[in-house]
Amino acid sequence: MDIKLNVQGVLADPKTETQVVLLRAEDKKEVLPIWVGAVEGTAIKFALEGILPARPMTHDLLKNILEHLRLRVQKVIITEIKNNTYYALIYIESDGTLLTVDARPSDAIALAIRMHVPIYTTDEVFRQRSGDDLDAWLEKLSPKDFGEHTA
Amino acid sequence: MDIKLNVQGVLADPKTETQVVLLRAEDKKEVLPIWVGAVEGTAIKFALEGILPARPMTHDLLKNILEHLRLRVQKVIITEIKNNTYYALIYIESDGTLLTVDARPSDAIALAIRMHVPIYTTDEVFRQRSGDDLDAWLEKLSPKDFGEHTA
Repeated sequence: MDIKLNVQGVLADPKTETQVVLLRAEDKKEVLPIWVGAVEGTAIKFALEGILPARPMTHDLLKNILEHLRLRVQKVIITEIKNNTYYALIYIESDGTLLTVDARPSDAIALAIRMHVPIYTTDEVFRQRSGDDLDAWLEKLSPKDFGEHTA
Repeated sequence: MDIKLNVQGVLADPKTETQVVLLRAEDKKEVLPIWVGAVEGTAIKFALEGILPARPMTHDLLKNILEHLRLRVQKVIITEIKNNTYYALIYIESDGTLLTVDARPSDAIALAIRMHVPIYTTDEVFRQRSGDDLDAWLEKLSPKDFGEHTA
């Protein structure tokens, strides 16, 4: 069954330049952490915080192109975890046809927030998520990292 | 008049994390340097060198979406320089209609190389380009930066 996710925030580890996007299941307390690159993390954080950069970022360009072409993104789904890599699909409506395009979760999330469409995942992904890794990662952060980077 | 540009390479300054894309006018010796961020520079370099990352990068996703939707990118044009910022337009054909979408030159170039479409600019942009800045920037690089980063 699909589980709706809310983007809770983006945490950054300034030492390693990795960032983690925290996605919280709407109907439970569980969190799905997804590690992303610094640029993708920033693209998500800007959208969450409503920051409009002076020049469109790549995901803004993608949104602009879709809107110019009157294409509607319906939803994005984080579909699976394979070898610690997360996979996602973007669902796009074009003339009544629903297309799915393979994407990295970071791109899918950055686009979903900009286009105000829901993000889903499956029970299976939640079972396979690496919660232990998140705990270990969080332990290394200092309190100020939270203050600076959560949305 | 439009001037066709060939992407000559991407140079990186490891100290500042800035990269410069060198665009050479097809019919002259002049070079148009465009400064880009590290991620955009890498996105251009990967496409130039035919490197296919395991997971699609954001510009690969954009290309995949356009191809899924049977949309053709016709060309990109670097249209103007204002306050040292470069502007570009992406021309997209949709059902016989030509749409233009505003983009950063880095995104426009990263997409153009992936979709094998020409990149143009104007005489006016060439007149306004900051060749002196490039010379100053190049002087600071050591020879090994060239070996590592040109295509």
